[in-house]
Amino acid sequence: VTGSRPEKTLLRVLAGDPVWPLPIWLMRQAGRYLPEYREVRARAGSFLDLCYTPALAAAVTLQPIRRFGFDAAIIFSDILVVPHALGQDVRFVENEGPRLEPITSEGDLKRLSEGMPLHCLAPVFETLERVKGALPSETTLLGFCGAPWTVASYMIAGKGTPDQAPARVIAYRDPAFMTALIDRLVEASTTYLVAQIDAGADAVQIFESFGGALPPALFGPLSLDPISRIVRGLKAARPQAKVIVFVRGGGPNLKCLAKARIADCIALDWTLDPAAALADLPSTLATQGNLDPLALVAGGPPLDRGIEAILQTVRGRPHIFNLGHGIVPETPIAHVERMIAQVRSAP
Amino acid sequence: VTGSRPEKTLLRVLAGDPVWPLPIWLMRQAGRYLPEYREVRARAGSFLDLCYTPALAAAVTLQPIRRFGFDAAIIFSDILVVPHALGQDVRFVENEGPRLEPITSEGDLKRLSEGMPLHCLAPVFETLERVKGALPSETTLLGFCGAPWTVASYMIAGKGTPDQAPARVIAYRDPAFMTALIDRLVEASTTYLVAQIDAGADAVQIFESFGGALPPALFGPLSLDPISRIVRGLKAARPQAKVIVFVRGGGPNLKCLAKARIADCIALDWTLDPAAALADLPSTLATQGNLDPLALVAGGPPLDRGIEAILQTVRGRPHIFNLGHGIVPETPIAHVERMIAQVRSAP
Repeated sequence: VTGSRPEKTLLRVLAGDPVWPLPIWLMRQAGRYLPEYREVRARAGSFLDLCYTPALAAAVTLQPIRRFGFDAAIIFSDILVVPHALGQDVRFVENEGPRLEPITSEGDLKRLSEGMPLHCLAPVFETLERVKGALPSETTLLGFCGAPWTVASYMIAGKGTPDQAPARVIAYRDPAFMTALIDRLVEASTTYLVAQIDAGADAVQIFESFGGALPPALFGPLSLDPISRIVRGLKAARPQAKVIVFVRGGGPNLKCLAKARIADCIALDWTLDPAAALADLPSTLATQGNLDPLALVAGGPPLDRGIEAILQTVRGRPHIFNLGHGIVPETPIAHVERMIAQVRSAP
Repeated sequence: VTGSRPEKTLLRVLAGDPVWPLPIWLMRQAGRYLPEYREVRARAGSFLDLCYTPALAAAVTLQPIRRFGFDAAIIFSDILVVPHALGQDVRFVENEGPRLEPITSEGDLKRLSEGMPLHCLAPVFETLERVKGALPSETTLLGFCGAPWTVASYMIAGKGTPDQAPARVIAYRDPAFMTALIDRLVEASTTYLVAQIDAGADAVQIFESFGGALPPALFGPLSLDPISRIVRGLKAARPQAKVIVFVRGGGPNLKCLAKARIADCIALDWTLDPAAALADLPSTLATQGNLDPLALVAGGPPLDRGIEAILQTVRGRPHIFNLGHGIVPETPIAHVERMIAQVRSAP
């Protein structure tokens, strides 16, 4: 006789069930605010070495689960492993961020591999397998990738840039190149997410971190449509795969995303009023978010009130508690503990 | 017998009249994309020296009027002259941006002057008077200031910061200080705008450049309310003064701004769909914007289409053609000329 395995509450929410207390995880939960992360990070070589060393990547993925018992683990990796796998030179410069060899024309695209050389990402899949084996059965395992526009903006500028100006200029000036690059990323990302599901991910999140600076004429073709194609491709290949879509700054466009019924869950950034956002979305569509990460840094009554406001608003809806953006390194661990307790003890 | 003076079309729009062809000016139109500006800039000492030397500031204010015949001149200055006048140390570091001695507590506020020492800004008023005397009578003269939240975020962090993180943390952690700082800026900005009107400005624009990263609970108290108090204070003192409010990233909140009927004109940033924005606003409320400045850099058919889309949408409404953010240094002058011709020849 085998005991029944505890259910994964986060997957129930993704299926459209209201679950209470809300399942909770945090974007960038395996990160620098944790001393045990900083300890591993110091031992690893480069940031990419850490991503590509399954023993270490699995260890840091599991750290916040061990410490806080979050309802989901998200694989420790980076959205730029996709251009790296495609053959673009990618480095992470300490305290500065990623640096890539810019790709700015159709000629440059020839430097990238055809298709998606999944073997380059074998360490990521091994990490997923290791985490899967070590994870409590009630904990959901999340894979992820960047949305094509966000990844393309790094590939073109060679780094993070205010309002993605270099990529936006190229989107106007050379739409054929931009389309070709986005198409390559749609294909590569779909293949990558299918492989993450096969390696043990229960669900995946697509990060459009830079959705906010696109003008309306470009938002559809460069953000919404490519994301939709990835989700459709993934679901055609792996019908059981669940998908969370996070578009930072995508406020006015969330309704389109929801209407298209592409994703299983829409993640809200911290600038959105959850009541207004939920009023615009079907009541059976799961949502995620959206506490301001800096309220978690500050703590005190504003934090309590911010958490309470979200709990009140989403009650009775399928919702995953999360931040509205990644947790920042300055966050006191005591504030995280307090937040989790408040979410889990909500009457 | 005196000839009749040509009317200022931009003021007609601010009064709610649809005017065609649309009046046009560009945010940051006196700037580095103009060789004649770069020539004056090279002769001036620091950036603040340029702002505070009336002969030079007036000259660069007039340059885009002489070259393009824009319907408005906006005084050449900076939003940080307000904290500078209040006694905060402000410098502009070439290629890096502004650097201020941070103010982060109520104790630090004691370092600032009480009230608004307008005499420190005498060169700005002299510049307005000089420009007024030199401007064609059909050209509207605009003054401006930064909105309190945007200015406060610089005063607290000492520089521009991603998503105004330092100021946001303080807004949660020390609301009493934040309120006190915002109150000081409301008072100083109101006094400053009144004095700009008295020095010859026909209308003023309030720039909330950083409206996009505020969570909903802070947007009202830190952005909308302070802006409203400035506009009400200005109009109580100078009932004829017209006000344009530009909130970058304020998309979901524009409706509140419009409903409150505070401003005479709502300026739209480039990420907003003008059709959707106008549908939400009263048809007699003037709007301004909102071409993507990078479409103007790129030129070609996407620029023509972007201009045409705005023209089609705003036809029959009181609208001022402008960019959705400041013009960037890389902009080819030929593209500006082409845009002006397209706006002015629209059938």
